[in-house]
Amino acid sequence: MAMKRAATSVIRTVCGPVVADPLPISRSLHASPGSKKIVGVFYKANEYASMNPNFVGCVENALGIREWLESKGHQYIVTDDKEGPDCELEKHIPDLHVLISTPFHPAYVTAERIKKAKNLQLLLTAGVGSDHIDLQAAAAAGLTVAEVTGSNVVSVAEDELMRILILVRNFLPGYHQVISGDWNVAGIAHRAYDLEGKTVGTFGAGRIGKLLLQRLKPFNCNLLYHDRLKMDPEMEAQTGAKFEEDLDAMLSKCDIVVINTPLTEKTRGIFDKERIAKLKKGVLIVNNARGAIMDTQAVVDACSSGQIGGYSGDVWYPQPAPKDHPWRYMPNQAMTPHISGTTIDAQLRYAAGTKDMLDRYFRGEDFPAQNYIVKEGIVASQYL
Amino acid sequence: MAMKRAATSVIRTVCGPVVADPLPISRSLHASPGSKKIVGVFYKANEYASMNPNFVGCVENALGIREWLESKGHQYIVTDDKEGPDCELEKHIPDLHVLISTPFHPAYVTAERIKKAKNLQLLLTAGVGSDHIDLQAAAAAGLTVAEVTGSNVVSVAEDELMRILILVRNFLPGYHQVISGDWNVAGIAHRAYDLEGKTVGTFGAGRIGKLLLQRLKPFNCNLLYHDRLKMDPEMEAQTGAKFEEDLDAMLSKCDIVVINTPLTEKTRGIFDKERIAKLKKGVLIVNNARGAIMDTQAVVDACSSGQIGGYSGDVWYPQPAPKDHPWRYMPNQAMTPHISGTTIDAQLRYAAGTKDMLDRYFRGEDFPAQNYIVKEGIVASQYL
Repeated sequence: MAMKRAATSVIRTVCGPVVADPLPISRSLHASPGSKKIVGVFYKANEYASMNPNFVGCVENALGIREWLESKGHQYIVTDDKEGPDCELEKHIPDLHVLISTPFHPAYVTAERIKKAKNLQLLLTAGVGSDHIDLQAAAAAGLTVAEVTGSNVVSVAEDELMRILILVRNFLPGYHQVISGDWNVAGIAHRAYDLEGKTVGTFGAGRIGKLLLQRLKPFNCNLLYHDRLKMDPEMEAQTGAKFEEDLDAMLSKCDIVVINTPLTEKTRGIFDKERIAKLKKGVLIVNNARGAIMDTQAVVDACSSGQIGGYSGDVWYPQPAPKDHPWRYMPNQAMTPHISGTTIDAQLRYAAGTKDMLDRYFRGEDFPAQNYIVKEGIVASQYL
Repeated sequence: MAMKRAATSVIRTVCGPVVADPLPISRSLHASPGSKKIVGVFYKANEYASMNPNFVGCVENALGIREWLESKGHQYIVTDDKEGPDCELEKHIPDLHVLISTPFHPAYVTAERIKKAKNLQLLLTAGVGSDHIDLQAAAAAGLTVAEVTGSNVVSVAEDELMRILILVRNFLPGYHQVISGDWNVAGIAHRAYDLEGKTVGTFGAGRIGKLLLQRLKPFNCNLLYHDRLKMDPEMEAQTGAKFEEDLDAMLSKCDIVVINTPLTEKTRGIFDKERIAKLKKGVLIVNNARGAIMDTQAVVDACSSGQIGGYSGDVWYPQPAPKDHPWRYMPNQAMTPHISGTTIDAQLRYAAGTKDMLDRYFRGEDFPAQNYIVKEGIVASQYL
């Protein structure tokens, strides 16, 4: 696979900001072959790093590929220090060839950073979801952006089903009673329900949405999905889920809404005050997709008023969520940091997938087709 | 259905304590027809009682059958005050005909209370699980004990799957980070796993166990079960679960153990120090069956040492759990008060089932066969 930095004139034309500040000629050179500088940005594990030999997704264990990379003569810098002008990542921006990051502790790759990164060829996401990268700027610069598609879809789908149950069954008030020495069944039971018989709709029925629907099937719910495309008839028959062409028509029927759509310019802030007001009173929302799909304050207000009966997810904007992020303190939330896709099982899969893409990159071979988000300057259609 | 108080001589012979202190002749009389005194023991809802019109399982809403009972000329006393010699329940023991209780706030029906309850004919459990009743003493006194079999099995099975996921995915440390202003993905991820591929065994594959196995099926686990009887081949094929004749042989293979067996003299304390020591290191245990199946302190010690990696359930001994119950404070627990079978949906079902049995009782008709725990002095075989 040739890693071109040269942006085509077509892309330059459609990408306003980049065109407004054209790239210098030197950025259009192919990278020299041979040794590469690879930077990985992961979360730090500190005392946890040594607790599990398979805990490869952290800075300390660095996807378990250091020995392999160094044996091939490449340089491998790993850090969790990714923000601000003096951070460790910033120091390596000017001469790195490959930047690896994860959605759990994302290195935000802005147009400005891309401009500074004169040797950059490849942006890899160890995991799924590359919205921490300015894809238009990456495309305009002729870069390739790829993920380990599928590496943690099962992990996320399982986590979504857990969150649905935590909300429907009203788990957390019971747990709080336990640790605070109380016992008040009524305080839990008056708003605890079975999942059976409820209407569950997924906004987005890609890989994760489909896996969720399969796992929901034996719960005897009324399953709905909205997506750009209808699923194939076999999957529809298997899950019993009904296609809803109109998003709002689906949402108004749902007791439980699960968000499984990528963050794009179309979905950013799509759950705003107006849309939330049109949902069923007391609706439960699970969002492991991206925090910015929601209007932050609208979610807080609706949880406070009871319009949203429960909100659970592992995604925030920004990440890490600051100490004063209002979702931490709103009622009926069942939030966690961004963890659903970084189980030990998922880490082993996305570490292997990242290594595979690096290996192909060194050999000049193509990646598995489904992994591309931007291929040599062309953005995959679903991100346009 | 004739409600006999007369214990047969056979039962008198096998029940030591009752034989040692034989019942007076007056206890052997059939209850007079006509108006009955019915006492219901439920949990109090206080301010929650009016929050949901379907919240029928509490003292205040009294299964929603007061009007119906009173219109038929019966007396209906409802209380949550069930412990000690001066409690409200104790006052009514001498002349009640029917006692209704639930597993969530059980009225413990001891041999002593049965002895005092000279008019008692029928003990109904609004829900499933009648181990709060001394069944041998009830049988010896010729009573009938019945539950609303099946009324909350779906509710409990759903809750078990939630708890499995909460433990496997290490949900609670993430939630604690959120509410305490932290963000440390590694502190969660180093022991978070996918459920996929793990070995899950249920001790007991009755109604709840089977529903759990059906719901686990799409998670692609290795499913095992131990029970007195093999499931029918169709259910085995549907769930893919393998029968394990020997309990300990199954337990030693399990990453996750779910307890779905009733509390009997055989299962009381069966998870003691020795049995827990033989489980896989770091095993996860979900127990929504009964607290007394576990040796309380052995569970605490194993959670502290890491032998048990996580313990979740809604059952305790005794209930309500006292403020100093050690399960409240042991590490890696995901406990709640006893709630899994008292969702709003379950309440509506067990209230309807209780009403149905009362109606049949008034008419002298038999109950649905599966509801009997003790039928006119004979204990159902699985409780012997």
